[in-house]
Amino acid sequence: MPRIMILNGPNLDIMGRRKNAAYNGISLADVDTMVQDWAKEHQVEVDFRQSNHEGVLVDWIHEALDGVDGLIINATALTHTSLMITDALAALECPTIELHFSNVHRDPTRADRHISVVRRAVTGVIAGFGPRGYLAALDLLNDMAAEAAQKET
Amino acid sequence: MPRIMILNGPNLDIMGRRKNAAYNGISLADVDTMVQDWAKEHQVEVDFRQSNHEGVLVDWIHEALDGVDGLIINATALTHTSLMITDALAALECPTIELHFSNVHRDPTRADRHISVVRRAVTGVIAGFGPRGYLAALDLLNDMAAEAAQKET
Amino acid sequence: MPRIMILNGPNLDIMGRRKNAAYNGISLADVDTMVQDWAKEHQVEVDFRQSNHEGVLVDWIHEALDGVDGLIINATALTHTSLMITDALAALECPTIELHFSNVHRDPTRADRHISVVRRAVTGVIAGFGPRGYLAALDLLNDMAAEAAQKET
Amino acid sequence: MPRIMILNGPNLDIMGRRKNAAYNGISLADVDTMVQDWAKEHQVEVDFRQSNHEGVLVDWIHEALDGVDGLIINATALTHTSLMITDALAALECPTIELHFSNVHRDPTRADRHISVVRRAVTGVIAGFGPRGYLAALDLLNDMAAEAAQKET
Amino acid sequence: MPRIMILNGPNLDIMGRRKNAAYNGISLADVDTMVQDWAKEHQVEVDFRQSNHEGVLVDWIHEALDGVDGLIINATALTHTSLMITDALAALECPTIELHFSNVHRDPTRADRHISVVRRAVTGVIAGFGPRGYLAALDLLNDMAAEAAQKET
Amino acid sequence: MPRIMILNGPNLDIMGRRKNAAYNGISLADVDTMVQDWAKEHQVEVDFRQSNHEGVLVDWIHEALDGVDGLIINATALTHTSLMITDALAALECPTIELHFSNVHRDPTRADRHISVVRRAVTGVIAGFGPRGYLAALDLLNDMAAEAAQKET
Amino acid sequence: MPRIMILNGPNLDIMGRRKNAAYNGISLADVDTMVQDWAKEHQVEVDFRQSNHEGVLVDWIHEALDGVDGLIINATALTHTSLMITDALAALECPTIELHFSNVHRDPTRADRHISVVRRAVTGVIAGFGPRGYLAALDLLNDMAAEAAQKET
Amino acid sequence: MPRIMILNGPNLDIMGRRKNAAYNGISLADVDTMVQDWAKEHQVEVDFRQSNHEGVLVDWIHEALDGVDGLIINATALTHTSLMITDALAALECPTIELHFSNVHRDPTRADRHISVVRRAVTGVIAGFGPRGYLAALDLLNDMAAEAAQKET
Amino acid sequence: MPRIMILNGPNLDIMGRRKNAAYNGISLADVDTMVQDWAKEHQVEVDFRQSNHEGVLVDWIHEALDGVDGLIINATALTHTSLMITDALAALECPTIELHFSNVHRDPTRADRHISVVRRAVTGVIAGFGPRGYLAALDLLNDMAAEAAQKET
Amino acid sequence: MPRIMILNGPNLDIMGRRKNAAYNGISLADVDTMVQDWAKEHQVEVDFRQSNHEGVLVDWIHEALDGVDGLIINATALTHTSLMITDALAALECPTIELHFSNVHRDPTRADRHISVVRRAVTGVIAGFGPRGYLAALDLLNDMAAEAAQKET
Amino acid sequence: MPRIMILNGPNLDIMGRRKNAAYNGISLADVDTMVQDWAKEHQVEVDFRQSNHEGVLVDWIHEALDGVDGLIINATALTHTSLMITDALAALECPTIELHFSNVHRDPTRADRHISVVRRAVTGVIAGFGPRGYLAALDLLNDMAAEAAQKET
Amino acid sequence: MPRIMILNGPNLDIMGRRKNAAYNGISLADVDTMVQDWAKEHQVEVDFRQSNHEGVLVDWIHEALDGVDGLIINATALTHTSLMITDALAALECPTIELHFSNVHRDPTRADRHISVVRRAVTGVIAGFGPRGYLAALDLLNDMAAEAAQKET
Repeated sequence: MPRIMILNGPNLDIMGRRKNAAYNGISLADVDTMVQDWAKEHQVEVDFRQSNHEGVLVDWIHEALDGVDGLIINATALTHTSLMITDALAALECPTIELHFSNVHRDPTRADRHISVVRRAVTGVIAGFGPRGYLAALDLLNDMAAEAAQKET
Repeated sequence: MPRIMILNGPNLDIMGRRKNAAYNGISLADVDTMVQDWAKEHQVEVDFRQSNHEGVLVDWIHEALDGVDGLIINATALTHTSLMITDALAALECPTIELHFSNVHRDPTRADRHISVVRRAVTGVIAGFGPRGYLAALDLLNDMAAEAAQKET
Repeated sequence: MPRIMILNGPNLDIMGRRKNAAYNGISLADVDTMVQDWAKEHQVEVDFRQSNHEGVLVDWIHEALDGVDGLIINATALTHTSLMITDALAALECPTIELHFSNVHRDPTRADRHISVVRRAVTGVIAGFGPRGYLAALDLLNDMAAEAAQKET
Repeated sequence: MPRIMILNGPNLDIMGRRKNAAYNGISLADVDTMVQDWAKEHQVEVDFRQSNHEGVLVDWIHEALDGVDGLIINATALTHTSLMITDALAALECPTIELHFSNVHRDPTRADRHISVVRRAVTGVIAGFGPRGYLAALDLLNDMAAEAAQKET
Repeated sequence: MPRIMILNGPNLDIMGRRKNAAYNGISLADVDTMVQDWAKEHQVEVDFRQSNHEGVLVDWIHEALDGVDGLIINATALTHTSLMITDALAALECPTIELHFSNVHRDPTRADRHISVVRRAVTGVIAGFGPRGYLAALDLLNDMAAEAAQKET
Repeated sequence: MPRIMILNGPNLDIMGRRKNAAYNGISLADVDTMVQDWAKEHQVEVDFRQSNHEGVLVDWIHEALDGVDGLIINATALTHTSLMITDALAALECPTIELHFSNVHRDPTRADRHISVVRRAVTGVIAGFGPRGYLAALDLLNDMAAEAAQKET
Repeated sequence: MPRIMILNGPNLDIMGRRKNAAYNGISLADVDTMVQDWAKEHQVEVDFRQSNHEGVLVDWIHEALDGVDGLIINATALTHTSLMITDALAALECPTIELHFSNVHRDPTRADRHISVVRRAVTGVIAGFGPRGYLAALDLLNDMAAEAAQKET
Repeated sequence: MPRIMILNGPNLDIMGRRKNAAYNGISLADVDTMVQDWAKEHQVEVDFRQSNHEGVLVDWIHEALDGVDGLIINATALTHTSLMITDALAALECPTIELHFSNVHRDPTRADRHISVVRRAVTGVIAGFGPRGYLAALDLLNDMAAEAAQKET
Repeated sequence: MPRIMILNGPNLDIMGRRKNAAYNGISLADVDTMVQDWAKEHQVEVDFRQSNHEGVLVDWIHEALDGVDGLIINATALTHTSLMITDALAALECPTIELHFSNVHRDPTRADRHISVVRRAVTGVIAGFGPRGYLAALDLLNDMAAEAAQKET
Repeated sequence: MPRIMILNGPNLDIMGRRKNAAYNGISLADVDTMVQDWAKEHQVEVDFRQSNHEGVLVDWIHEALDGVDGLIINATALTHTSLMITDALAALECPTIELHFSNVHRDPTRADRHISVVRRAVTGVIAGFGPRGYLAALDLLNDMAAEAAQKET
Repeated sequence: MPRIMILNGPNLDIMGRRKNAAYNGISLADVDTMVQDWAKEHQVEVDFRQSNHEGVLVDWIHEALDGVDGLIINATALTHTSLMITDALAALECPTIELHFSNVHRDPTRADRHISVVRRAVTGVIAGFGPRGYLAALDLLNDMAAEAAQKET
Repeated sequence: MPRIMILNGPNLDIMGRRKNAAYNGISLADVDTMVQDWAKEHQVEVDFRQSNHEGVLVDWIHEALDGVDGLIINATALTHTSLMITDALAALECPTIELHFSNVHRDPTRADRHISVVRRAVTGVIAGFGPRGYLAALDLLNDMAAEAAQKET
């Protein structure tokens, strides 16, 4: 059974509790449930985690060096500054996806969020589709895992 | 039947013919075939076009003001400079997706391709998944169209 | 009878159809009507055109090399990037006016619209007065044409 | 009778006396005369002033908070640096016009004159038409005052 | 009795009269009253002034070279450009406080207000607490004056 | 009894031990004592913490979502880089104060300390008053808490 | 017989008609004649074209994918902005030359013309020799074609 | 008798009273005395003035349009920002000298004082020689006045 | 016996496991062994640690305030961003060395790795010698410790 | 007999000896031979020199003030920094050509080689054609010399 | 007898021979003559030299470490780039003057000549007075030498 | 016997004679002695040179193409500007070390010394250890030479 790791970065633990919460106030636990439903349906093991600690996220990416077939990271504020997460991702061989709930580029007043350093080390990017983006990312990783499995055979 | 427009920008007409062609040398016609297969299966009308002319792309986006439920644009070189495409997209009410075959941010030597002005006017972004990205984009737009149809009811 | 050419740039053809349309939703055809009324009253021939194609706008400016006494250009998105329109305007000998409906400088979130490259080749600038600006521009060009005609005599 | 205030900034008092004076060496008094002729003809009271003192210009703009229907400012050198004039203009409710004799953007050697901070607080801009620009500005403000008067009725 | 000078910069004289006035529309006279109440209660002489003239503000800072125990300056628009106020403040030996009603850094669209040149010459900064900030500044200066008086004894 | 949280960032644990220690070599424990004296006198519960871990500071700000009436953060080196602390603060509804011992802007050789990203999410700023600044911040938060309590009644 | 394509960009069609025309006012037709004389003499087919349309230039470069032994492009204003022409040129396998009539770098007032994006995709550059530069470019391409033909044998 | 005007800018009135005063604490009155001694000796009328008001300095430069044979300006803080002084100086026909007591370029921590906008409009510059610089400037202007007088004869 | 602390930053724990591992795939444990051999030979206690947590590295540097005679830090990705490590190092009195395996400046595509903020607080730098650099650093620190011991005697 | 000077800059003396030497490892002596063959054939005296000393190159350009009909300079590393060579070239009246073996703009990793300061003082530029470029440059200079000779007659 | 060294930089040897030579075409030998006249009159030994070699200029500055009472350097093109001349000047203890014939800041088209790195190491600057500037510089150095001699006594 | 070349750049010849000389005023001759002691002990030939001439340093690096096993360069002021030294070093095959006495990055006021262009072409860097750094560099080069010799066997 293929295994996919999903890492959620700083402040996602209070998602839904913020002032003017987006996405109808759904919480990260709701997203986890949605993701596990997909996992059951597609026969994939999905490991869903969150941390506010940059170092913990790096430790987890290192875990993914063994036995993980795909990794999704929603790095939130660390997207724009964390060279160490970029380096950790660059060490992986499985496909990786940088995911964002919103398309921050629509907001011209947040120029300091327009550059992603994490992007330099991922396979692809999905941004702007809210929680639905997690499922699109899982579909893509699942396809690639199937294709990779086929090649090995 | 929902209708989705896919616009392909400059130089995609010679995709597969370039030196060191990527994606196993598949052509844009191959992508069109792949997309139409998806269209038949999902009962969606997909209008797939290509032009090297910025003005023609703007004209086509204006067409999409009526009776189009979603638009995908792979603006290639125009992604980084075309304010007029950005303005045209901003006039649409249906969801729009900026699509790229590759994740150009992996290539640190192409800094002039790191900024997208088109991004300021689209719903979301998908980049780095090759031709497969078109199908992921179609799935997302189809979901949103279904959801929008439901709301209207 | 003096002759004035008015060129309208990309996306003005859908003016009034956009989301949150400004100027009470009047269309470019309405502006044309307003302009032709002025033309009749002042005995001036006014040639009013629109295109989404940068190259077409350049072709039209070249037409103005012969028999045109003044030119107004509302270059919209091309204002900020089109060196070729700037070069074409620089070849004219008649007075030229860069016109904008709005004063984009009021909007601090659109910094990429603060620079005009077209400005380097025009006689003067009028911005921020909506459709009324066209009439002010026509008045000024008409005065200058009269003055030039007087000089020649 | 509508009332319009015209403020002229630093060094305009010696206009016409400068080395290589432009506009046939006409003086600011000449412009005042031209403006008052217009005022008589259009039944408008025009208050025409000049100062080399930034603070005096701000005091005068504050005067315009009461009983002024439109304001024209030719801020010369202060155009590019005076945040306090910008703030004062932003407090006005009547329409305001930033006016310049010349189109400084034509002169590539004066890059420090390409940015206007005043522009962020005005209704519109007229530049490049010499003394004639004052009359175009007066026409526009007069139209707007008439229109505003009509609305109030 | 210790003596504190409070200098208010350009446009504060019309505070409360602006469009969309903040702080419930209270005027600078109201702030003066509030400050004088504090002064009576704490047995401190407070000299409260306002000017739209940069040079006048510099003259007043020079006055403070003699017999002033603390100075508060709300330099508004001059905060960001006035090197001469910075130089004048640098000549003082008493503690000085740069005060702002609002925390302009919250507003990403006003980047030209993010740098303070005055800051290089003051003891400390208080920003974002509205009129209440004046009292916090007075408390701090009063404490420092008491401490300084004690040291001299 | 109102509750205020004070968070101290990296390296403040060795304050007073550094080479050339400022503020007479007082330690963070001394500041805590000073703060608790104020707390007793004003009947306020003050929660005073320090960490060198960015993630821990974010976790603590999340704690403040419930039952905290005001928060003071002295983010030291993280002031200038931590987007995740900025995001966490932005989620709070209680007033927040960014506090610094010194006015770093006086030191022209530390330009990389002149920008604060944390500032975009706080109510106000106090800088340059040494340990005394904590008491000014507590006074201001206490006033605001009283005022807020009054409004609710 | 070897075949060389020469593409001329925007505004070259009115060369010689501009104010202060350079190169003794010779027109593009004169250049074509000069080029065809060279062609006859050297037994080379030269295809000489001009367009003001960026998209047309791209279409023509695509034509050169088949049966063209060398390409000269005088991209005028597009030299500095057209990423799509750069991408099209990058797809060619034959040698390509970027040609300019003048050495724009001599003119310090035209800094926005100092960078060439087209340069990233061409074999070499010739600039500053007026119409004579076309002949030098043809000589070089003819040499390279001869050399390439020899290698294939 | 030739006439030379010397203008001294903001804060020079308190020179010698500042903390850590340079040049042995001599005051501007001392410099005036030194200058008048030179004037008597060389039979030149020297008009020595100081103001903290930018507008007053501009008014004085306008006075120099008539009957002044040379002008020295020590613009202090205004050196780096005052476009209006630059414009006023540009209108003069007599030789002008920008003078500074110190060579601020030696101080790497004052980068915002490294650019002079006044410099664009003066004949020459003298900096770094303290009060002695005034005499060198007077010598040079006196020579030039003599030479100019000779030419006229 | 002198004591030297060696701190290794993020991702060095997976060194040798990365794709395209450098230095013949040797691991950090191998480096530790090499270092301990040197320690035994030179009669020095060497404390060799690694962490992916920025806060932990700061805590360890604080430990070095007591009883450590030299510190080597290979801060990897944190080299370029961590102001808090810089501040922590600045508090040490013993000599400190910034060490890098490779000379990143050779790689022009990694411009964001060209600036070291840590460098502002260290005694010296050694870069580009692979694992061998640790021994050179130890030799230098050992020499300095001997010299310092001698001075104290 | 016309006379042309060719100056070769730093490191060209070891061309062909470098690691990964380009152009089949031909040396500068080989280029000289090629050039002299051309000289004999065209009856032109060609003076071919090389130096690693910037000052020597300037001395040689000064020599060219007398009796030289054209100058070619391959300034290598000095192309990008030498203002003194630019000034020396600007003093010449004969035509001058800046020559480069390669088109360095193709290499995005060498951004510090993209600007040429020498370019501001030459007639034209030839880059990207290897040793063959020297012959193209000689042809062009020879043509110009012939033309100039004709004019004088 | 005091001794003053005057160093003239690159290209001054051909001064007067350049196209459009300034200062009535006088040569450097003429300036030397003028300077030696002054030297005789004032009983000062003046050592006047010129070189196009940066290294030679540095060698000469080193000579000035012994027995020189003042140094004038007209570094021409090296003014803007030569850190090694700056370092050499910084080692001198006698007063030093940076001299320029023209005030290059008047020329907005030569922005790359607006910064002087040499300025960081000199006592003062004189620019814009042509050959006459040498005499003003000599006067100032002579005064300072006299003053220094007086102090030593 | 292995051979190592040490090149010392501009101004090192007066090291120890400068104002406020560092390193106890030791001279370059003292460093040479120290180095030759090491050479004798390790049986290595060390060639120690100094020049103020950039071109001479390049000539010497070219000498090192034959029979040199390692090169150390202390390029002083040339470190930051000399592209020609960078190119010369890039042609060497033996290991090369960039050496600096001090760690200039500690000094925030010398930002123009923070970038090294030489670094792009060397094997490694040693900075901040004073004269002792030469010995560390020699040790490292000696190790590498031994290792390289071993490989060849």
